[in-house]
Amino acid sequence: MNKPYAIGIDLGGTYTKFGVVDRDGKVLFFDSISTEGYAVAENYVNDLGKAINGMIEKNRLKDKIQGIGMGVPNGNMNDGTVENAANLIWTKRGKVELAKMMTERTGLSCKLTNDANAAAMGEMAYGAAKGLKDFIVITLGTGVGSGIVSNGYLVAGHDGFAGELGHVKVVHENGRPCGCGLTGCLETYASATGVARTAREFLLAQPEKQSVLRNIHFQPITSLDVYEAACKGDELAIDVFNLTGKILGEAFCNFIAFSSPAAIILCGGLAKSKHFLLKPLQKAIDENICFVYRGKTKIEFSKLDDSIAAILGASALAWE
Amino acid sequence: MNKPYAIGIDLGGTYTKFGVVDRDGKVLFFDSISTEGYAVAENYVNDLGKAINGMIEKNRLKDKIQGIGMGVPNGNMNDGTVENAANLIWTKRGKVELAKMMTERTGLSCKLTNDANAAAMGEMAYGAAKGLKDFIVITLGTGVGSGIVSNGYLVAGHDGFAGELGHVKVVHENGRPCGCGLTGCLETYASATGVARTAREFLLAQPEKQSVLRNIHFQPITSLDVYEAACKGDELAIDVFNLTGKILGEAFCNFIAFSSPAAIILCGGLAKSKHFLLKPLQKAIDENICFVYRGKTKIEFSKLDDSIAAILGASALAWE
Repeated sequence: MNKPYAIGIDLGGTYTKFGVVDRDGKVLFFDSISTEGYAVAENYVNDLGKAINGMIEKNRLKDKIQGIGMGVPNGNMNDGTVENAANLIWTKRGKVELAKMMTERTGLSCKLTNDANAAAMGEMAYGAAKGLKDFIVITLGTGVGSGIVSNGYLVAGHDGFAGELGHVKVVHENGRPCGCGLTGCLETYASATGVARTAREFLLAQPEKQSVLRNIHFQPITSLDVYEAACKGDELAIDVFNLTGKILGEAFCNFIAFSSPAAIILCGGLAKSKHFLLKPLQKAIDENICFVYRGKTKIEFSKLDDSIAAILGASALAWE
Repeated sequence: MNKPYAIGIDLGGTYTKFGVVDRDGKVLFFDSISTEGYAVAENYVNDLGKAINGMIEKNRLKDKIQGIGMGVPNGNMNDGTVENAANLIWTKRGKVELAKMMTERTGLSCKLTNDANAAAMGEMAYGAAKGLKDFIVITLGTGVGSGIVSNGYLVAGHDGFAGELGHVKVVHENGRPCGCGLTGCLETYASATGVARTAREFLLAQPEKQSVLRNIHFQPITSLDVYEAACKGDELAIDVFNLTGKILGEAFCNFIAFSSPAAIILCGGLAKSKHFLLKPLQKAIDENICFVYRGKTKIEFSKLDDSIAAILGASALAWE
């Protein structure tokens, strides 16, 4: 019954990337279509379905595909729909039954979930969470996302929207305003944009302190700038990562008290700053963890290739 | 294959209470033995096994019992053991394989978990969570415990100790010291002892404010005193519940972002103050909840009879 390949689809705001993946997480064939320029879901799904069917035909994979998995912003695993995704116009007028539509176009079973949940499935199938049944994946990108696995299953919640750990409150007084409308959310501190903001705040608050970041003019400082400065030994930049790691570690203590994961796995662009994040993060955990959990949860960084991680994650849904 | 009755055992520090429960949550037969006075596990299990076998024989229930469920302080669901429970001397010298030992004495399958998880199973089998697959039970007693259900299963964690939500940090600066060694834990504010402490702090901090609680001399104020004062309209006592509800509501927002439960169900002694807790609790949720979850999670209070809730909860494990 089990077939050797799965199709993983990474639906992004600009491109939709997809590939054929084997059980070891090797991407055998790869292609993409534009995501932009579609006003209605039908046209998008028609084009995507055609491209997928073409890839299957061309490579003679008919009857060898287990199914399709999709990583979709705002994707709802419980019912295979998507609604109100920030950059997808065709999701703005109510629920789109995307999984069902893809099955109709391809004849393959299709499951979808949001990006962070797909990342968690990818880590479980091919990455740092292989063999684990209880872990959390935290994506540190423009925002902070999370995919939580308990007893070997994604924690979806009654509505399919569980795991918005980027929006737990970590600063209770005078917290930063968040895009979600609240203040003090983890995402406002521990994302790429949060790191850049911390750097700007530190530069303003400590005018006497030297930093190579002061040489950046006429453009906003990015988290990559902060990373590069830290690599040069810039003290202020290292302080930025110290605060970021501390806030992450304190938040992780509460996550651990919730689901007691064997590991928390960090991925996404900001996770590349592992060298600067890990020490303050681990220190904050050691100082704030309840004794029940002390020393039990490993902090790891994803080793999956960034350029294909989203496709891998999506494909992992098909093996479920 | 399914048999009509289950045995629920509530292992407390002083008494071990047990009963035969039917599928509707009716306790048909009930008995108890002392938990105290046992130095080694074998003797305790021998006496408990004898009492259970006697109850089965006397009531002619042989072959009619599905299994045994036990609620045990520090009980580990993953491997059916107990270790280092505060009031049980015979758990202090390493893991006791309690579930296995009970099966050997009775010939019945036996599962165990901690008190709060058992409470969650009880609510799912017979109570406010009937029909739900995603919910959280919070026990407000001397401490704060929690049982988390996701996809219809208890969230146990990789080590069996998930769900210590009484020990998430809710006050980050100058938080109250907790028995666990940390500061600012939810339990130090939102438990019966936390409420009593808040009352004492309020009385000291507002010496000009009248309160019937000032009439309590020569004994520590209890949460029951605060409740009774609030019932009389005492402003200071009501303020105590307002703060307690606010802290609970803010913490619940983070819990909801984790597992998106359909309901959070409160039980335990302090939950009887529902009338004073619910309004500030719901207000704090409404003010701090991420828009994704707004208005979706119901706050409920357990309706199970307190005197048998622990036995019911334990018995529910046997139906799993």
